[in-house]
Amino acid sequence: MTKRTIRSLDLKEGRVDMTHGSGGRAMAQLIDELFAKAFANPALAEGNDQARLDVPMIDGKPARLAFSTDSFVISPLFFPGGNIGSLAVHGTVNDVALSGAKPLWLSAGFILEEGFPLADLATIIASMAEAAKKAGVEIVTGDTKVVEKGKADGLFINTAGIGALDPRLDLSAHNIKPGDAIIVSGSLGDHGVAVMAKRENLVFEEQILSDSAALNHMIEAMVASGAQLHAMRDPTRGGLATTLNEMAQAAGVGIRLEEAAIPVRPAVRSVCEILGLDPLYVANEGKLIAFCPAADAEKLLAAMRQMPEGKDAALIGTVVEDANAFVEMRTDMGGNRMVDWLAGEQLPRIC
Amino acid sequence: MTKRTIRSLDLKEGRVDMTHGSGGRAMAQLIDELFAKAFANPALAEGNDQARLDVPMIDGKPARLAFSTDSFVISPLFFPGGNIGSLAVHGTVNDVALSGAKPLWLSAGFILEEGFPLADLATIIASMAEAAKKAGVEIVTGDTKVVEKGKADGLFINTAGIGALDPRLDLSAHNIKPGDAIIVSGSLGDHGVAVMAKRENLVFEEQILSDSAALNHMIEAMVASGAQLHAMRDPTRGGLATTLNEMAQAAGVGIRLEEAAIPVRPAVRSVCEILGLDPLYVANEGKLIAFCPAADAEKLLAAMRQMPEGKDAALIGTVVEDANAFVEMRTDMGGNRMVDWLAGEQLPRIC
Repeated sequence: MTKRTIRSLDLKEGRVDMTHGSGGRAMAQLIDELFAKAFANPALAEGNDQARLDVPMIDGKPARLAFSTDSFVISPLFFPGGNIGSLAVHGTVNDVALSGAKPLWLSAGFILEEGFPLADLATIIASMAEAAKKAGVEIVTGDTKVVEKGKADGLFINTAGIGALDPRLDLSAHNIKPGDAIIVSGSLGDHGVAVMAKRENLVFEEQILSDSAALNHMIEAMVASGAQLHAMRDPTRGGLATTLNEMAQAAGVGIRLEEAAIPVRPAVRSVCEILGLDPLYVANEGKLIAFCPAADAEKLLAAMRQMPEGKDAALIGTVVEDANAFVEMRTDMGGNRMVDWLAGEQLPRIC
Repeated sequence: MTKRTIRSLDLKEGRVDMTHGSGGRAMAQLIDELFAKAFANPALAEGNDQARLDVPMIDGKPARLAFSTDSFVISPLFFPGGNIGSLAVHGTVNDVALSGAKPLWLSAGFILEEGFPLADLATIIASMAEAAKKAGVEIVTGDTKVVEKGKADGLFINTAGIGALDPRLDLSAHNIKPGDAIIVSGSLGDHGVAVMAKRENLVFEEQILSDSAALNHMIEAMVASGAQLHAMRDPTRGGLATTLNEMAQAAGVGIRLEEAAIPVRPAVRSVCEILGLDPLYVANEGKLIAFCPAADAEKLLAAMRQMPEGKDAALIGTVVEDANAFVEMRTDMGGNRMVDWLAGEQLPRIC
């Protein structure tokens, strides 16, 4: 091996420069000293341009795969309850797990702006590594690019994820049926409000934390409960309202919600009132919506409530026949309200 | 289904705005009218947040997976011989295929800058779809984000890819052995010089095109030739010189090159001389380096030369024992030159 004296990365005062994206020695050093160390696992350690992975067997058959991706452009990068690194792991872990699959492997692609502090990058990478460990996934392959100052906004992260799916499971919006119960795993709006408050430097009596979390362990418990699951999705951008509209349209059914049953923290509700936001449209990063036969709702709720991520799980509505695929809500006042798709842009760069 | 009168996207004069990343109706329209239409395939059509995929069997056993990712930040987005869309497909297809795997599925994550012309986006997506079709892969899952004007540079794309790997194949830099032949699949420097010329508005008598191409069909032929393959990699950022140094270091071997044997087009050589570039350090996007036992070199070369992507394949050097893992080159002049890693940054944002 070549022995050269190369100074270690200056993780206190150092900044990303264009050489860190060059493909040359500086990039190799960034990868070795930051990424490879934090994400250490056998596939990554092989140091090839691709990870090689063994598909697990489930009940004597090879697992199907669930494959998903998300880019993260959240601003600010650090927010109460997380940062772009933990969010980038949670987001893709959840998108994979919502099919019923067990998330196993992530890729990570970094687009860095010249001048970005290496200290912040190290913190974010440590958060990714910790989130991955907690979720039981490995970051097995990655990529780093650097663009000139002013051509990005600090840091963007893309993750893609692969999960092992039991071939006997079939969760898809198309399976939703009239009569299905609609369950949400907890209170709505925490992530969007936490990010917005940080962005606008708002201070409240009670600090609101993002709900950003990996849901795969709870989903495992839901599958294991024996309750039949028709479909699951996470109400991220566009919030509960938009996600339910997407699902209703995909399944060709209507949805009827009970406002009184939808969990929203009082603090979140207050902030939404001040900022003119509707919590039904605010993004969540650690919540899911599940559709199951009404007869299985109690069993499913019980399984969810035993997990910390699902302790506030609630039955919020029912699927009905409706050729218009409308989402409607019986309000606290006893009236009926149409819950439409998000039309414009409420909270840009929330994830 | 809801019947609403929504105007189709204006693909002539329209521009990306923040609502296209909102998660709401405008984003759904962008996905439906542009992405879903161009990339049409059954997994994507399910419209879930993850694609569900069946692992193919190889010789009665489930394939292993090869998994890779790359973000693309190339500037300019359109260059002679391709654009960021075709490049984003080729790059990840190649990284997957270089393990010997058959690339099957890609994810695609788009980070769009507010104001980006929808016409350009449509052209880029069409190029992605065409490149994917030619390579025999499907874009099965994706994500779209929008950031404010000035917070990105038009468009960044991330792709991640999954391939099916024959469990009997084991290509890895660690397998390179003293005595191995080193083969390059064609002429060097075309991509970097083409992008640089476009960026600097240089005009030459002979237009130089990027070599951006999917190499998986040639790799299939290489594997099928029966020649034993120890390792393959594509000399992208950092060029041939840096890639060989990485591989030499990973394997703990030295490399000896013959300058006279390294194919560089005369036009590329001239431009490199004018711009003060060394073609050994210039990025390629449709070339590979292969390591195989010397006895198999002719068989491998013959298989490569039968494919258009490998018609100029050449034997350029040999692996030697060298505890320093040095890459050295016998020059045209008969001297010996150290070929070191790229130290700084030669051509920023080349991919």
